[in-house]
Amino acid sequence: MADRLYLDWNATAPLRPKARAAMIAAMDVVGNPSSVHAEGRAAKALLEKSRAQIAAAFGAEGADIVFTSGATEAAALVCAGRGLVCAPVEHEAVLAWCDPVLPVDAAGRVTVADPGRSALQIANSETGVVQHLPEGLAVSDLTQGLGKLPLAFNWLGVQFGIASAHKFGGPRGVGAVFLRQGLDLPAQLRGGGQEMGRRAGTENLIAIAGMAAASEAAARDLADGLWEDVARIRNILESALFAGSNGIISVGKGAERLPNTLCVIAPGWRGETQVMAMDLAGFAVSAGSACSSGKVRTSKVLGAMGFGADEAGQMVRISIGPGVSEEDVLRFAEAWTKGYAKARARAA
Amino acid sequence: MADRLYLDWNATAPLRPKARAAMIAAMDVVGNPSSVHAEGRAAKALLEKSRAQIAAAFGAEGADIVFTSGATEAAALVCAGRGLVCAPVEHEAVLAWCDPVLPVDAAGRVTVADPGRSALQIANSETGVVQHLPEGLAVSDLTQGLGKLPLAFNWLGVQFGIASAHKFGGPRGVGAVFLRQGLDLPAQLRGGGQEMGRRAGTENLIAIAGMAAASEAAARDLADGLWEDVARIRNILESALFAGSNGIISVGKGAERLPNTLCVIAPGWRGETQVMAMDLAGFAVSAGSACSSGKVRTSKVLGAMGFGADEAGQMVRISIGPGVSEEDVLRFAEAWTKGYAKARARAA
Repeated sequence: MADRLYLDWNATAPLRPKARAAMIAAMDVVGNPSSVHAEGRAAKALLEKSRAQIAAAFGAEGADIVFTSGATEAAALVCAGRGLVCAPVEHEAVLAWCDPVLPVDAAGRVTVADPGRSALQIANSETGVVQHLPEGLAVSDLTQGLGKLPLAFNWLGVQFGIASAHKFGGPRGVGAVFLRQGLDLPAQLRGGGQEMGRRAGTENLIAIAGMAAASEAAARDLADGLWEDVARIRNILESALFAGSNGIISVGKGAERLPNTLCVIAPGWRGETQVMAMDLAGFAVSAGSACSSGKVRTSKVLGAMGFGADEAGQMVRISIGPGVSEEDVLRFAEAWTKGYAKARARAA
Repeated sequence: MADRLYLDWNATAPLRPKARAAMIAAMDVVGNPSSVHAEGRAAKALLEKSRAQIAAAFGAEGADIVFTSGATEAAALVCAGRGLVCAPVEHEAVLAWCDPVLPVDAAGRVTVADPGRSALQIANSETGVVQHLPEGLAVSDLTQGLGKLPLAFNWLGVQFGIASAHKFGGPRGVGAVFLRQGLDLPAQLRGGGQEMGRRAGTENLIAIAGMAAASEAAARDLADGLWEDVARIRNILESALFAGSNGIISVGKGAERLPNTLCVIAPGWRGETQVMAMDLAGFAVSAGSACSSGKVRTSKVLGAMGFGADEAGQMVRISIGPGVSEEDVLRFAEAWTKGYAKARARAA
């Protein structure tokens, strides 16, 4: 797919070269981390080194980290059966276990009444809106914040955090729960003593090594200011879209947003049509969160912010990352503006 | 770890070169399989190609395959909350959800009264004892049989099968449920429509590609007769151990066994001491199933077969695979025989 431009980083980010290298190196580690012989101990050592790398990268030293098969399993582990409330802007993996009663304002900000009984995401995957996490919050889905925002788990005041490697350049299929020091949680997957009894099953060692390398690289990118440049380029894209078309809406602009995310409503142009038109033109963008088995559905997130079904169905999300250039986003803006003009002309 | 000899294939098998190559190739597939753009569709295509490869390799064409994070999750998915019975020789991941009331004979064979309400493994990880699966069996843990025995899921008459990639040369951290055609199961991980609604969460694509390549290679090895040679070498090892020491017991010898597994009781020599002595001598073997967080515990499997706690605590498992040579196992037999003689001399 030469000449394609991938602008769907919030769905999944490209695998980082360092994650790739760490995974290939881990392929040579033969043992089962639960085995007591030298091969098993080597596997266990790589597992624990990876855990320490992730803790250091995300300010979770001293906290416990439980590896899971991704954020969906992590959300189940920390939310299921706990009677938590959340806002309807949460990811489906959190909504599956929490009562979505918390209010959302027009800018996408959520008000939490009882932190110890609430789940609140650090940032929204569709709009990029960043939340203020109240002290003592029960659960925070950190997936869209890790690697994009300079955050330290230990400073968040959160009991349990949810992480997904593939959102910050690690592989798909691995994630983690961060537990504030001293907290525990009962296992859902049982039948082995792995992860200190909190999650049974032979560990996904190659992917975990990739997650660790990606977390280090992501922390370094943040420290090096790469995401300030990402924000600059996102803002250039936003300006270019607004310069090219009248009547469009930038969702969440009134709130703090992730540096890489732009969510735009184009009145009269359906989101799924936008995605297909842009796909044909060589650009990968999204009309909502990807996690619905290829179905394009009207965004619940925008509905919660007070947009009508029509507007919510006319949304496109562009999400970028380091390495996406000014030229890249201007090329997209040109194609999108042309596409929108054509769609409007057809409708007129 | 040069000069080491890995004889613990039932804990985890070395990653096959074809699995490694498929995983590295999959690292270049950027998309989220749930995204509708070209990158997402390419990821989805790799996912479905992998599923078809696994179905073909294990005789599950037309059956459904649901990917999981491993056999532990697969066992929870097909066993939890179903009120199944099993024998105490099952893996902990099955025992966690089933009532272990089925009788086991001295050779390790299990008698099933009500197949539709029972779980029965195809083969035991510790002893290698192979079970006859009755028609209509609710669940079979196939992890130790896949790639070692010529079996086709569709001919087993089983409702749900459990698979783990790393037991046949794929990566750790990925597995599957095989569902007989027409059967369904409710999701435990919720919050996304992946796997036809049976298992939410972005798919572990790199590992799944590795599992698929490993399954193809495993099926080819079986067809090429490599496991007949494995059995021949296992038998050479067994004979050498018996030629070198008196009074040892080969567990499960009265039953059909996996071609690669040898489970030996050495009276007076504790299993964990054997494992450590052999580890120091350069050999990786096991004193039971690995999945207990590095703890060496007395085998429940041997207890269920009628061995006393002493005997069960004096067990060592040697499990091999293609590429382990006659010279290799004879080298192990020599070291083990010397070690046992020393241990006996100390005790005398």
